[in-house]
Amino acid sequence: MKIAVLTIFPEMFDSVLNSSILGRARKEGLVDISPVDIRPFSTLKHKNTDDYPFGGGAGMVMLAQPICDAVRKLRSEGYNGKCLYMSPRGKALTQDKVRELAKEDGLILLCGHYEGVDQRAIDAVVDEELSLGDFVLTGGELAAMAVCDAVSRYVPGVLGSEESTGEESFSDGLLEYPQYTRPREFEGAEVPEVLLNGNHAHIKAWRRQQSLLVTARMRPDMFEKAEMTDKERRETLRLLEEEKKNAAP
Amino acid sequence: MKIAVLTIFPEMFDSVLNSSILGRARKEGLVDISPVDIRPFSTLKHKNTDDYPFGGGAGMVMLAQPICDAVRKLRSEGYNGKCLYMSPRGKALTQDKVRELAKEDGLILLCGHYEGVDQRAIDAVVDEELSLGDFVLTGGELAAMAVCDAVSRYVPGVLGSEESTGEESFSDGLLEYPQYTRPREFEGAEVPEVLLNGNHAHIKAWRRQQSLLVTARMRPDMFEKAEMTDKERRETLRLLEEEKKNAAP
Repeated sequence: MKIAVLTIFPEMFDSVLNSSILGRARKEGLVDISPVDIRPFSTLKHKNTDDYPFGGGAGMVMLAQPICDAVRKLRSEGYNGKCLYMSPRGKALTQDKVRELAKEDGLILLCGHYEGVDQRAIDAVVDEELSLGDFVLTGGELAAMAVCDAVSRYVPGVLGSEESTGEESFSDGLLEYPQYTRPREFEGAEVPEVLLNGNHAHIKAWRRQQSLLVTARMRPDMFEKAEMTDKERRETLRLLEEEKKNAAP
Repeated sequence: MKIAVLTIFPEMFDSVLNSSILGRARKEGLVDISPVDIRPFSTLKHKNTDDYPFGGGAGMVMLAQPICDAVRKLRSEGYNGKCLYMSPRGKALTQDKVRELAKEDGLILLCGHYEGVDQRAIDAVVDEELSLGDFVLTGGELAAMAVCDAVSRYVPGVLGSEESTGEESFSDGLLEYPQYTRPREFEGAEVPEVLLNGNHAHIKAWRRQQSLLVTARMRPDMFEKAEMTDKERRETLRLLEEEKKNAAP
């Protein structure tokens, strides 16, 4: 897994790439994530990377030349995966997309800033525009970090035993069930009895029901599409109805 | 604007908080973003912050006690805004939500890790679960950084003249039009003539049309809901149709 991130703020990546799970994965050589500074690629005397937009308006636009030259240099170094431009205009990242990207080797992530990138650079070297969601960031860097993080989770060995990609939100179209750990009683709140009695069939059934219920409560759109039996659907909607009744004054 | 981020990896925030626009905003005292380490709040001898899940299964669950005590300490220090748990189970962040959060003072962002947080901590101190989107990260930290970044953009003075929150994706339910900067010709590709002739009415009309077209192409769901005249809708769909015909072999 090899990812290059084109940015005018490479130093922004230091602590994220050296901490936590990504930091460990990089130290162990499981993933190779390199922030690449766009600036040195500029052929302008002062190494500018942006200029005023044609047609006027606030903001600056990133120049096509340094970006195109940087992408081509990476291509020549074996980065042959997709070149993704992190932009609020792109399709929103989903877990399916993460799994798809995890199969590519040599991804290039381009981080925009200000009012974006000259459209001609996008036309020339970008394969796809990718967004984190319907919100705007000051630049593409945090979005690129999120892609690196989400994709790395699928590299064998990156997740330790304390994590897993198996039972997690979205893996089966459902959100995750509630979790509890010690102590059995915390500030008067008890751990649900079923989790304490060691009956694995009961625990599995309870967690499935809770997963369905959480999904129905938080994300009716996901619940609608998720696979389940008719009985499960009816029972979950009944529990949700009951919950609403109990919440009413 | 004051945000505390509860995390077991506070060092992960260093370079993000000290670079680029957020770094400048913090230096100028416009935003106050503090990563707060959860670990010292643990009352356990070895300052543990997680334990095995009741009911079994892979992964670790973050303990309720350190989190609850940390949130209460922050409350006593004047962090009186919402406490948001960054979690894939939450509602997805949108630009409307960003604007709403930007009005709050003293936000608390809680970053989960591993298999999440003991449900009793969520019940006791969390106001809302918030997600970046339908994908899973190794922890809530990158999501929290994205919230800090997106929200800070609305603090007066944070965005310099090279940026603006006015004409941007989502501000009017549309994606942004293509931008161009110098040179007028780049690798044989010309800047659209209309942007060069200085007729501001023409430029405005062209940008509006392009915004509509980009939105219809990339995000039919947004295009459907966006405000426009019937004529604009018809004309955009006609241009999109033409584009598709030209793209066909």
